[in-house]
Amino acid sequence: MSALQKIVGTAVFLLLSTIAAVAQSNTKNLDELRAADAAWLKTYEAKDVDKAAAFCDDQGSLLWPNAPRVTGKSAIAKATASAFAIPDFKLEWHTDQSGVARSGELGYTSGTYTWTFKDASGKPAADKGKYLTIWKKQPDGSWKVLLDMFNTDLPPN
Amino acid sequence: MSALQKIVGTAVFLLLSTIAAVAQSNTKNLDELRAADAAWLKTYEAKDVDKAAAFCDDQGSLLWPNAPRVTGKSAIAKATASAFAIPDFKLEWHTDQSGVARSGELGYTSGTYTWTFKDASGKPAADKGKYLTIWKKQPDGSWKVLLDMFNTDLPPN
Repeated sequence: MSALQKIVGTAVFLLLSTIAAVAQSNTKNLDELRAADAAWLKTYEAKDVDKAAAFCDDQGSLLWPNAPRVTGKSAIAKATASAFAIPDFKLEWHTDQSGVARSGELGYTSGTYTWTFKDASGKPAADKGKYLTIWKKQPDGSWKVLLDMFNTDLPPN
Repeated sequence: MSALQKIVGTAVFLLLSTIAAVAQSNTKNLDELRAADAAWLKTYEAKDVDKAAAFCDDQGSLLWPNAPRVTGKSAIAKATASAFAIPDFKLEWHTDQSGVARSGELGYTSGTYTWTFKDASGKPAADKGKYLTIWKKQPDGSWKVLLDMFNTDLPPN
């Protein structure tokens, strides 16, 4: 084998290794993103305001229906506390679609939710719809919510 | 200057050039993304269903309120045509926040909208709220909508 062949062979090997490493890293990133989404849901099931708000980026925003955008940890904690205070509040969601940029610092999750609660008159009520969340990877490697939005599938009242 | 100094100097120069090129490429990507968002709005102002739908990725979805997710060009065209058919439909939106991943193939835009129309009884009606759109760069370099969602800021009826 000539020196040139050795160099080309090494270059091809390095290129393929790099491609494999990037692909593996992206799968790992997506797994971690989906795990963060599932862990965020757990804080909703536990109605833990502080832990739920801690999943949001310092510049994170909630784009929830029937209210303007809410930005920053303390405003997010307040909005989350208001939701958890709704009688018999129970929210579940399921991720149907997710993705992470090749560079690994930006991703999204999207899916459906079901939400049950008691309305102002104390009557059981239910809503179902869809959500879309944008996540930003933090310097410590954790994923945090940059933007979170949802809306109902039900027809208007 | 020693050979080692020359090598280190060259390496530092190449590193800084790469960082500058990546930063410039990201600014260009973000400019192109925001231009795509603005061009999409133009198709809404013109109520051009085909051109509006053409801004969506082949696997794109509309996550609009009061209906389940709508996926694919033909379903998107149908939903868009239904919106444009609302009497005196007029939609405007404004991008407040946007970002592109360092790898340049995934981005998002978010902002506010105002929407005026005539309701079922022919009375002028208005809505305002916020939106979040995820964009995917296509092999031809254009940005297309992967997921588009909005909801109202107004209190429930």
